[in-house]
Amino acid sequence: MPQAPKELSFTRTERTVPTRARERAAYDHETVHAILDAGYLCHLGFVRDGAPVVLPTLYGRVGHRLYLHGSTGSRPLRMAGETADPGLPVCVTVTHVDGLVLAKSAFHHSINYRSVVVHGTAHQVTDHDEKTAALDTLVDQVVPGRAADSRPANAKELAATAVIRLDLDEVSAKIRTGGPNDEPADLALPHWSGVLPVAPRYGTPVPADDLAPDIAEPAYLSAR
Amino acid sequence: MPQAPKELSFTRTERTVPTRARERAAYDHETVHAILDAGYLCHLGFVRDGAPVVLPTLYGRVGHRLYLHGSTGSRPLRMAGETADPGLPVCVTVTHVDGLVLAKSAFHHSINYRSVVVHGTAHQVTDHDEKTAALDTLVDQVVPGRAADSRPANAKELAATAVIRLDLDEVSAKIRTGGPNDEPADLALPHWSGVLPVAPRYGTPVPADDLAPDIAEPAYLSAR
Repeated sequence: MPQAPKELSFTRTERTVPTRARERAAYDHETVHAILDAGYLCHLGFVRDGAPVVLPTLYGRVGHRLYLHGSTGSRPLRMAGETADPGLPVCVTVTHVDGLVLAKSAFHHSINYRSVVVHGTAHQVTDHDEKTAALDTLVDQVVPGRAADSRPANAKELAATAVIRLDLDEVSAKIRTGGPNDEPADLALPHWSGVLPVAPRYGTPVPADDLAPDIAEPAYLSAR
Repeated sequence: MPQAPKELSFTRTERTVPTRARERAAYDHETVHAILDAGYLCHLGFVRDGAPVVLPTLYGRVGHRLYLHGSTGSRPLRMAGETADPGLPVCVTVTHVDGLVLAKSAFHHSINYRSVVVHGTAHQVTDHDEKTAALDTLVDQVVPGRAADSRPANAKELAATAVIRLDLDEVSAKIRTGGPNDEPADLALPHWSGVLPVAPRYGTPVPADDLAPDIAEPAYLSAR
């Protein structure tokens, strides 16, 4: 009889194991992918002239790979290109806030969140087909179903867009859920305690000024 | 006659002037402060062993200073402490997503957002009064009015909490608003175009399991 498959997980490294609250850390593929798939905006960190830089950037996931979007003129993209062989060391972090945790004591205030931190080396995507597919992924990550309902990039636009890829290899997730963890001695205090849930709210779509009035709102927008 | 006061702005530096979309950049205090005050979660970037690290962290603003929260065991806090004199070079980025911008062409898809990027050197806060005030700021940044309605940190809790400060000096904001910027040649395409607005939605507060039922929900929660 074959053994039951082990849960598929990313290998833990010294920098993916947190120094505190280790019980909140997760390394399994399913948890990491779910957190990445729930978002489209990451914070991309890289080092420039010895100093850290953190920029908000759109991303999309395909399997164990992230694609990050930028113009060919943007700094991290240029740097990933300039250092094509070794690539650009980056840290990509995705965070979702799920709730504000109010405890009896100021000290135990917290937030509920899901985050993923990816350490690795980013490389510019130069292959035409990979780049085209990556751009579809980036559009669909923001609005699933949208890539097929827009004009694909032409050669000039493709040349003006830079995409970098980052393999999911050294990765960890961190999750906090649940209510406040108050000290027993504080429970008699008169302050309200609990969680204020937070989630993104998508409003009513606003048609572009130059949109022909006979073009209906697509169904995939209400699914977002 | 005195001259009309110049608009108060942060000084532009080589790294706060973007290489692209410069028309989206802003440096005035009012814009920067408003973006910072609309949030409570930043992405803190620092360099560790030559590689970038980006971690989600709570912050609060007091005038031209940010306070960032962590435990004394967390890496960036320890590093800021270890290097007390020179401090820890950091980049702190705050991003709010306001809308998903759907254009006729994949290339012109975008998001509406407001972001602030702060470059600087973080220092651990060691002064007792500054640290106490900073913790109040951190709690009130998440839920305005909450610091006065919770038990303040005691000596043991204060010792277990690390706070770092970062002066707002080398700072820029970046804002995108409005609809898609489609190519005129694309306007006849049959795809819907426009903006799907996004904003945080705060749900119904969930009382803690151990909250006495006679403690009412505070008014400041509905203001959040």
